[in-house]
Amino acid sequence: MKARVTVMLKNGVLDPQGEAIRHALGALGFAGVEGVRQGKVIELDLSATDKVAAETGVKAMCEKLLANTVIESYRVEIL
Amino acid sequence: MKARVTVMLKNGVLDPQGEAIRHALGALGFAGVEGVRQGKVIELDLSATDKVAAETGVKAMCEKLLANTVIESYRVEIL
Repeated sequence: MKARVTVMLKNGVLDPQGEAIRHALGALGFAGVEGVRQGKVIELDLSATDKVAAETGVKAMCEKLLANTVIESYRVEIL
Repeated sequence: MKARVTVMLKNGVLDPQGEAIRHALGALGFAGVEGVRQGKVIELDLSATDKVAAETGVKAMCEKLLANTVIESYRVEIL
């Protein structure tokens, strides 16, 4: 079973990487980009076969390791 | 209009960050994780209102800046 975790900085937390991308896109001539936020995506191959158990497990991984819940939010999708 | 770009290393390209996460999850006692790949997700706020034009623009951004197409693949979603 595959799981995808998306980790983004929470709204209000400064995102210098996103800002850098926005500036670079402007410099390359791409107009109309009003804001950019960059985050991480982590794809996991799991041996679990139960969808609910897999989701619970992945959420625990996010809380413990994958996301810094003080400044980041995460979303788990089981594929 | 919002767009989400997901950039992942292509299959076969070594992913040390993903490997580090896999090891760390094992060390924390999470069993059953067979593989981990880490990538980037970039969320763009666009002023464009036409979905097709927005997608074309974002694909051009990927080719020029957001992804290194030699080793990375990208996926564009217009939200």
